[in-house]
Amino acid sequence: MTDSNLDRSAAQKPFRRLLLTGAAGNLGKQLRGALAAWADIVRITDIAPLGEVAAHEEASIVDIADEAAVHALLEGVDAVVHLGGISVEAPFEDLLQANIRGLYNLYSAAQKQGVKRIVYASSNHAVGFHPVTEVVDIDAPLRPDSLYGVTKCFGESLSRYYFDRFGLETVCLRIGSSFEQPKNPRMLVTYLSFRDLIELVRCSLFTNRVGHAIVYGVSDNRTKWVDNTKAAFLGFRPQDSSVEFEHLFPVTAPTADLDDPTQRFQGGPFVLAGPMEPKR
Amino acid sequence: MTDSNLDRSAAQKPFRRLLLTGAAGNLGKQLRGALAAWADIVRITDIAPLGEVAAHEEASIVDIADEAAVHALLEGVDAVVHLGGISVEAPFEDLLQANIRGLYNLYSAAQKQGVKRIVYASSNHAVGFHPVTEVVDIDAPLRPDSLYGVTKCFGESLSRYYFDRFGLETVCLRIGSSFEQPKNPRMLVTYLSFRDLIELVRCSLFTNRVGHAIVYGVSDNRTKWVDNTKAAFLGFRPQDSSVEFEHLFPVTAPTADLDDPTQRFQGGPFVLAGPMEPKR
Amino acid sequence: MTDSNLDRSAAQKPFRRLLLTGAAGNLGKQLRGALAAWADIVRITDIAPLGEVAAHEEASIVDIADEAAVHALLEGVDAVVHLGGISVEAPFEDLLQANIRGLYNLYSAAQKQGVKRIVYASSNHAVGFHPVTEVVDIDAPLRPDSLYGVTKCFGESLSRYYFDRFGLETVCLRIGSSFEQPKNPRMLVTYLSFRDLIELVRCSLFTNRVGHAIVYGVSDNRTKWVDNTKAAFLGFRPQDSSVEFEHLFPVTAPTADLDDPTQRFQGGPFVLAGPMEPKR
Amino acid sequence: MTDSNLDRSAAQKPFRRLLLTGAAGNLGKQLRGALAAWADIVRITDIAPLGEVAAHEEASIVDIADEAAVHALLEGVDAVVHLGGISVEAPFEDLLQANIRGLYNLYSAAQKQGVKRIVYASSNHAVGFHPVTEVVDIDAPLRPDSLYGVTKCFGESLSRYYFDRFGLETVCLRIGSSFEQPKNPRMLVTYLSFRDLIELVRCSLFTNRVGHAIVYGVSDNRTKWVDNTKAAFLGFRPQDSSVEFEHLFPVTAPTADLDDPTQRFQGGPFVLAGPMEPKR
Amino acid sequence: MTDSNLDRSAAQKPFRRLLLTGAAGNLGKQLRGALAAWADIVRITDIAPLGEVAAHEEASIVDIADEAAVHALLEGVDAVVHLGGISVEAPFEDLLQANIRGLYNLYSAAQKQGVKRIVYASSNHAVGFHPVTEVVDIDAPLRPDSLYGVTKCFGESLSRYYFDRFGLETVCLRIGSSFEQPKNPRMLVTYLSFRDLIELVRCSLFTNRVGHAIVYGVSDNRTKWVDNTKAAFLGFRPQDSSVEFEHLFPVTAPTADLDDPTQRFQGGPFVLAGPMEPKR
Amino acid sequence: MTDSNLDRSAAQKPFRRLLLTGAAGNLGKQLRGALAAWADIVRITDIAPLGEVAAHEEASIVDIADEAAVHALLEGVDAVVHLGGISVEAPFEDLLQANIRGLYNLYSAAQKQGVKRIVYASSNHAVGFHPVTEVVDIDAPLRPDSLYGVTKCFGESLSRYYFDRFGLETVCLRIGSSFEQPKNPRMLVTYLSFRDLIELVRCSLFTNRVGHAIVYGVSDNRTKWVDNTKAAFLGFRPQDSSVEFEHLFPVTAPTADLDDPTQRFQGGPFVLAGPMEPKR
Repeated sequence: MTDSNLDRSAAQKPFRRLLLTGAAGNLGKQLRGALAAWADIVRITDIAPLGEVAAHEEASIVDIADEAAVHALLEGVDAVVHLGGISVEAPFEDLLQANIRGLYNLYSAAQKQGVKRIVYASSNHAVGFHPVTEVVDIDAPLRPDSLYGVTKCFGESLSRYYFDRFGLETVCLRIGSSFEQPKNPRMLVTYLSFRDLIELVRCSLFTNRVGHAIVYGVSDNRTKWVDNTKAAFLGFRPQDSSVEFEHLFPVTAPTADLDDPTQRFQGGPFVLAGPMEPKR
Repeated sequence: MTDSNLDRSAAQKPFRRLLLTGAAGNLGKQLRGALAAWADIVRITDIAPLGEVAAHEEASIVDIADEAAVHALLEGVDAVVHLGGISVEAPFEDLLQANIRGLYNLYSAAQKQGVKRIVYASSNHAVGFHPVTEVVDIDAPLRPDSLYGVTKCFGESLSRYYFDRFGLETVCLRIGSSFEQPKNPRMLVTYLSFRDLIELVRCSLFTNRVGHAIVYGVSDNRTKWVDNTKAAFLGFRPQDSSVEFEHLFPVTAPTADLDDPTQRFQGGPFVLAGPMEPKR
Repeated sequence: MTDSNLDRSAAQKPFRRLLLTGAAGNLGKQLRGALAAWADIVRITDIAPLGEVAAHEEASIVDIADEAAVHALLEGVDAVVHLGGISVEAPFEDLLQANIRGLYNLYSAAQKQGVKRIVYASSNHAVGFHPVTEVVDIDAPLRPDSLYGVTKCFGESLSRYYFDRFGLETVCLRIGSSFEQPKNPRMLVTYLSFRDLIELVRCSLFTNRVGHAIVYGVSDNRTKWVDNTKAAFLGFRPQDSSVEFEHLFPVTAPTADLDDPTQRFQGGPFVLAGPMEPKR
Repeated sequence: MTDSNLDRSAAQKPFRRLLLTGAAGNLGKQLRGALAAWADIVRITDIAPLGEVAAHEEASIVDIADEAAVHALLEGVDAVVHLGGISVEAPFEDLLQANIRGLYNLYSAAQKQGVKRIVYASSNHAVGFHPVTEVVDIDAPLRPDSLYGVTKCFGESLSRYYFDRFGLETVCLRIGSSFEQPKNPRMLVTYLSFRDLIELVRCSLFTNRVGHAIVYGVSDNRTKWVDNTKAAFLGFRPQDSSVEFEHLFPVTAPTADLDDPTQRFQGGPFVLAGPMEPKR
Repeated sequence: MTDSNLDRSAAQKPFRRLLLTGAAGNLGKQLRGALAAWADIVRITDIAPLGEVAAHEEASIVDIADEAAVHALLEGVDAVVHLGGISVEAPFEDLLQANIRGLYNLYSAAQKQGVKRIVYASSNHAVGFHPVTEVVDIDAPLRPDSLYGVTKCFGESLSRYYFDRFGLETVCLRIGSSFEQPKNPRMLVTYLSFRDLIELVRCSLFTNRVGHAIVYGVSDNRTKWVDNTKAAFLGFRPQDSSVEFEHLFPVTAPTADLDDPTQRFQGGPFVLAGPMEPKR
Repeated sequence: MTDSNLDRSAAQKPFRRLLLTGAAGNLGKQLRGALAAWADIVRITDIAPLGEVAAHEEASIVDIADEAAVHALLEGVDAVVHLGGISVEAPFEDLLQANIRGLYNLYSAAQKQGVKRIVYASSNHAVGFHPVTEVVDIDAPLRPDSLYGVTKCFGESLSRYYFDRFGLETVCLRIGSSFEQPKNPRMLVTYLSFRDLIELVRCSLFTNRVGHAIVYGVSDNRTKWVDNTKAAFLGFRPQDSSVEFEHLFPVTAPTADLDDPTQRFQGGPFVLAGPMEPKR
């Protein structure tokens, strides 16, 4: 990166080219604009249509399971924000293509192309089988709550390997529930505002060294199941809170069935969502 | 609770009936009003007179050591806020009746009556023999500072058993010093405002699942001997601080005798208060 | 103890007088002989008949719930091996008298009589609600598996208080299953041979300082649920193992019902044994 | 398993049918004989020829990536010893088929067929990027040293999910170097004798409950990089040691290049072996 | 201190006499004024000129390596704020005189003169070889990043000894970068405002008991490498943050050379600064 | 070391030249012979006479505080076993010269001469203020029990710095009591037989990589205050035990004065031995 940075002394923006995968998705749309401020060129990709492409953008439709296409996609990229792949429970074969083979393609290509850092959308579903009566820190044992969660554990292991092996840095964002607003009481705990999401990605891209980092992506909500103390070197300080949405969910006596796994575990409905049968 | 909650769909308040023990005491008076907002019926009890009884209240004078009376008291109760018993050092026989036999009566009856949750006033005196130069979290080893503290350890063990055995949930509140204002410099550290006390009870009653939880009841004071990080799933965020009372205690050079146990240990005067001789 | 030790320079045995409670019980009988080697006088007590009394023994039938009798019992005693009280699940009232009031009587009297150390028969049932798929060390959280276990937690707290308050030392022996031989497959894990029991008591009595110590009483069995590493300052090295008894229990495929608490938790049958109704 | 166990009362062997995958491999050959003692029927499978099939054996050549074949393979099986798949660094596509898709097939089929337990050959290469100057316990963070190691991390996550989701138990054996004898100085540390391997599998199959367990598979070698203290509930006590092979490797002054990763990390040569290019 | 405190009942200020060493230095100048509010007499010392001496001040030029002079300096002192000695990397002989021999002189004299407490300027360079991708708490292993850092470790050990041996209390302040403002991007993390420095010293002097405490001296900066949770008993709550200075350092893509130790480790340039050759 | 090792292919012994400091001392005499088996040339040094010098030995009288002499001493050395300096409590000035300045001289010279490893005689007195009722592992906080102990902490910090800064490896041996036999009851716990000492040095010299390691030097005594689990990568397995010497110390009832620091802390008499006045 030394050379390109020298070249960049006259430029306005800190990165020359950032790659954003999953750019057509819920979170991708939020970040697409933010990245424009940080890079001269934002390369965006998805398997879905990407809409109008701005002057500073390079758009391409790529199936992440397509090895050659992914290698081409990574050419000339400084850093990656990887939101692509599947972000909900799905049949194993689908997850295998998108989140396992696809992720390997991404890392293999990134390493060969000399990419320095990947911001990887992991998920709190990598630890969703921890009970809601615990607070997990970033060293908590993996407890995937779904096959989807298992693929996120795979991503954390694979990226750790690429860091230990090649020094390719990754920040694994264990994103909670990033929507306009919480949709149910559980999301009062897991809510990550779009503004905080963008700040988290900013910290992940601009902290000078991150090594292989894990951080929970949640706003400063009243109730916490996660503890980012050991990730404080990333400088992420959420600005928002779900407190303003608490009125949406009327106060009731606790109704959790003691034996209902979707109430007992942090993963909520995910803990029963899988394994799904393949779509035929 | 399922049925009663169905019944409650037309009601205004989240609980049908809450039981408040120790309702005539210092903290009981504070909570008596608060509970009114959360339950159609607040059953209040104490061994002391309870004053005027409101329309939504059911009052009864009960000695908690009286097994039959306690079983009657728990009938029809959804959840309990248990402040009853003795809250200072006392002769062992008195503690035995109120805090050991009495607590067993309460749990035995609650389990038989199908009560779902008990908010139990434990105490920082369960860990008061930790030095003031340590910060204890909720997993710190028990270090009772008095026979009173020993009975609070008993309560934490007994309630743990009822949770592991029957799923009866308890939040153990290790309450510090809950008064109008701190009465001495030590209480600047242990102060819990009435407002924060009520909020802590609210969190304990309304968090969907609590399992068997332990949490320190202190406001956001400048100096901290305790750390609630691992109890963050309860959502307790104190609003008050003893900072506003610091002016009451003039600044002096440290005067602690290095060998004075009441200065060395978090329990303060409690560490020398027991064992007390029985009253004759 | 200084004076009496000076007096003892001409004597044969290291202690002048040891008190053994529960001397008529299963373990008491084993220890009665061993103590003879360590003290000029062995004071033995139980609520059951003690059989023939040797020349070096002082025998008395004492109900430990009788405060005055216990205070008399402790006179002139250097150290205590306390096996008395109830050692199985029982109605709460019985446990209250024997294991709570009785234990308080013992500690109160010991402190007043200047006793230096108590070896206290706690139990692995203080932590019996830990799963059989964990190894607990001596700092593991308390998880009593029965009301009996709750009273053992009480004993550990009470003795901690007497140590922090008065320096009265205690070794809490979390004894497993001390019988002639294991009676079921679970006891292959919890077995403590009589020889190892005696050695454990020897270490507890003769280690120069023990503070307030906790140690598991198990032989060197093949399978372990407990870890005494942090109690290694006591010098206890078991000589026996349940391996020699494994042939008694034919090898079978695992049959544990996944939901059977008596198979899931270290406490075995105790986890369902309580609470017991009072005997009428 | 209850019914079949009742049926088994008249039988000689504890299991009715065990499945051994990878039965034609190095370790499979060792275990094939051992399993005969524990099950009436040993179903053996591999992609390589299995040689002569004994009367108590059911042999089939199955590619684990073949979903339908794997589901058929699991029918009527009580428990599985899974050594199949690839056990060295390999091109990602090969690992994907054998160790990821194949393992998913195995767990998916096992769950549907009601299999109770899987003994899974994980590997110390799941943590091989820990330095040789550390001792890792079973809770140490994952540090895969190769793509192969990454797939072993996947297997540990997948099996954890099946346990949390369905109660299907797994013991993950992080096997070191199981050969006739150590082949280089590093293997003096990682050596697992065949006898100890068999004992480890025996413990894993017969311990009454194992939940989701992780255990290192090493003999009692002089030098240790791993610590099985927390897995002591499995009862594995190695009988052998690499001490008897130390004479094979002449004593020399340490020659490790401080910067040579194969000397710095527990994984040894694996840490540089990958990623491998696909075979064309 | 009892007597002098009695004498002080009519006085205005909590301490009679505080000693400030290094009073002519960067931080000394900041504290010189603050101490005036806390003590009737502020004894100030340095090896450099101290400027104009106020009425409440006693000034003396003392080489801390001069044993007799130091013993004289400590006479009549209640407590010490020790900023003296060398605070950057330097030839070993210089560090030996100032930070090792000098510190011994200080503690030896303080103990003999009955001083109750020393606030000791340790440094984050005692742990500067921890990577910037970790958050260290006050129990983190020592990792000095320079010979200077080694002498700070010496100071922490020596002061621990004087506390364990004599009860002489010390607060070790691991001060980050205390300047008017951060001078480079690293100092955005390590910045300690002068106001927060003074508050930290205030907490260290006035907390009733501190034992032997360690605390990091940093403001509430966005990015954190350190965690003071376990030092919360000191009541230090920083009021400032380096956020207001972030605009001074233009945002750039991370440029850290993966192998550049000054970027990889918390100590920054210190990690390469030593060992220095002696000045000739 | 690569070249010299190539040269060594025809030689008999693994090291060309080892340096042994403190060779005239108690332990030095034991090791002098052992080193002969491991190196062609054993350079021995002390400030005391070294007796008859063998053909394979190079002897020199060197004051370790003499910088130039130490630099000369290190020329051509592969590795060092450093027993030199003062090994008991002494006046600070003496410790400063021998254990601080001397140690710096040693490390400075070793680094400049390209020495690869130093085996450093640290001491259990670096942690001697831990109570005898604790078991400390190699990460336990430093608690020096004497000025001597403080200098051993200095040595551990200094060597850590040279490892982090230059890769110069050190094994810090926290040696207990290495004598022909234990001289008092405390030494039954701290005893290290000469044979085990030699084995410990052997492991420290020949383990391929040691980084910066800490290990307790005690035999396999019945009672343990220390735990080497985390140092198991060194392969040290003591062969001896103090059990055979227990008969030397008649069994007595515990006589420890509860307030006697020499009985309460692991350091024994050292905890009161310092600080010593300078010899005049």
